[in-house]
Amino acid sequence: MKHTHEHAVAVDPEVKDANLKRLRRIEGQIRGIHKMVEEDRYCPDIITQIASAQEALRAVGRQLLRNHLKHCATAAIKQGPQEADATYDELLELVYRHLR
Amino acid sequence: MKHTHEHAVAVDPEVKDANLKRLRRIEGQIRGIHKMVEEDRYCPDIITQIASAQEALRAVGRQLLRNHLKHCATAAIKQGPQEADATYDELLELVYRHLR
Amino acid sequence: MKHTHEHAVAVDPEVKDANLKRLRRIEGQIRGIHKMVEEDRYCPDIITQIASAQEALRAVGRQLLRNHLKHCATAAIKQGPQEADATYDELLELVYRHLR
Amino acid sequence: MKHTHEHAVAVDPEVKDANLKRLRRIEGQIRGIHKMVEEDRYCPDIITQIASAQEALRAVGRQLLRNHLKHCATAAIKQGPQEADATYDELLELVYRHLR
Repeated sequence: MKHTHEHAVAVDPEVKDANLKRLRRIEGQIRGIHKMVEEDRYCPDIITQIASAQEALRAVGRQLLRNHLKHCATAAIKQGPQEADATYDELLELVYRHLR
Repeated sequence: MKHTHEHAVAVDPEVKDANLKRLRRIEGQIRGIHKMVEEDRYCPDIITQIASAQEALRAVGRQLLRNHLKHCATAAIKQGPQEADATYDELLELVYRHLR
Repeated sequence: MKHTHEHAVAVDPEVKDANLKRLRRIEGQIRGIHKMVEEDRYCPDIITQIASAQEALRAVGRQLLRNHLKHCATAAIKQGPQEADATYDELLELVYRHLR
Repeated sequence: MKHTHEHAVAVDPEVKDANLKRLRRIEGQIRGIHKMVEEDRYCPDIITQIASAQEALRAVGRQLLRNHLKHCATAAIKQGPQEADATYDELLELVYRHLR
């Protein structure tokens, strides 16, 4: 999986803001989980918090994937069949790794 | 899913230490992802980092689940069939939510 | 992951019946998916059917896991700490592979 | 999620053949799992077979998703921003449901 981009072609500002807020909240969740582990809290309660952080990360991933489809992937697909093909493979690899 | 425990029956100290270290590292990863989003980095690169944080959270969950089985669940199972039954249901609910 | 059992310690008959019915239905779903592929049906419609078969397999796995916990794992846990430890590892390995 | 297509825009014949073969094999796997349940086989062995069938279904889904991206989604994306947007949403919904 190779690419020459270091940056996104474009990012919708409201999506970016929402993702930054979500990530701040996830950072707080991780600190909360750290504290729970430190205090030997009941394992299922900690795992429930972990599941919630995972869900939140998944939501950020989904927004990024949507943005990627909308801006970067569309641009690549319009370039030609080879660029499109490389983009599909990158996309599928990404999706199956992120969502496994 | 109810339980009366606020704390784990027991936690292996080396497991606890490893989990605390992992969580510190995950916190750093989340901050790194925040920075990447801020800088409009290439979406697949960000999603790759998210996948890595998800994997790390999964590893912490796995250790907690193992500790839970070893200490709390075993204790409940030895108490009698009703406690055991409630423990199995809690366990499965947990596992299927955390690992979906 | 080693074990000497070829058979389950015990299986609840109503769980067994429900699983056999579910598996017959899944077999039919797979045949339906085969037909859809043959007829070049719209890919998202086929993937939706695949998701439904996956969900159904997951439900069978969940019932088997519950039965395993209730009968086999409990028996192993009562045998002693070594048998218990091997059972936990087998269980976690199973769960993380099946639910990834 | 609505669409007016009953059929795929196009399907690569070698992909179709491979998927049909895979689905025949999965059908056989499901029958094998049915037999194992019937014979009260050791639950972890059955779950391992279920995990293998799930993996195989996932592979079929991946090929269908690739075909969908290559033919149908690309066509929609070239039609205009509205068709593209609807396609992204359908795609993400599909992917997050199928891969959860």
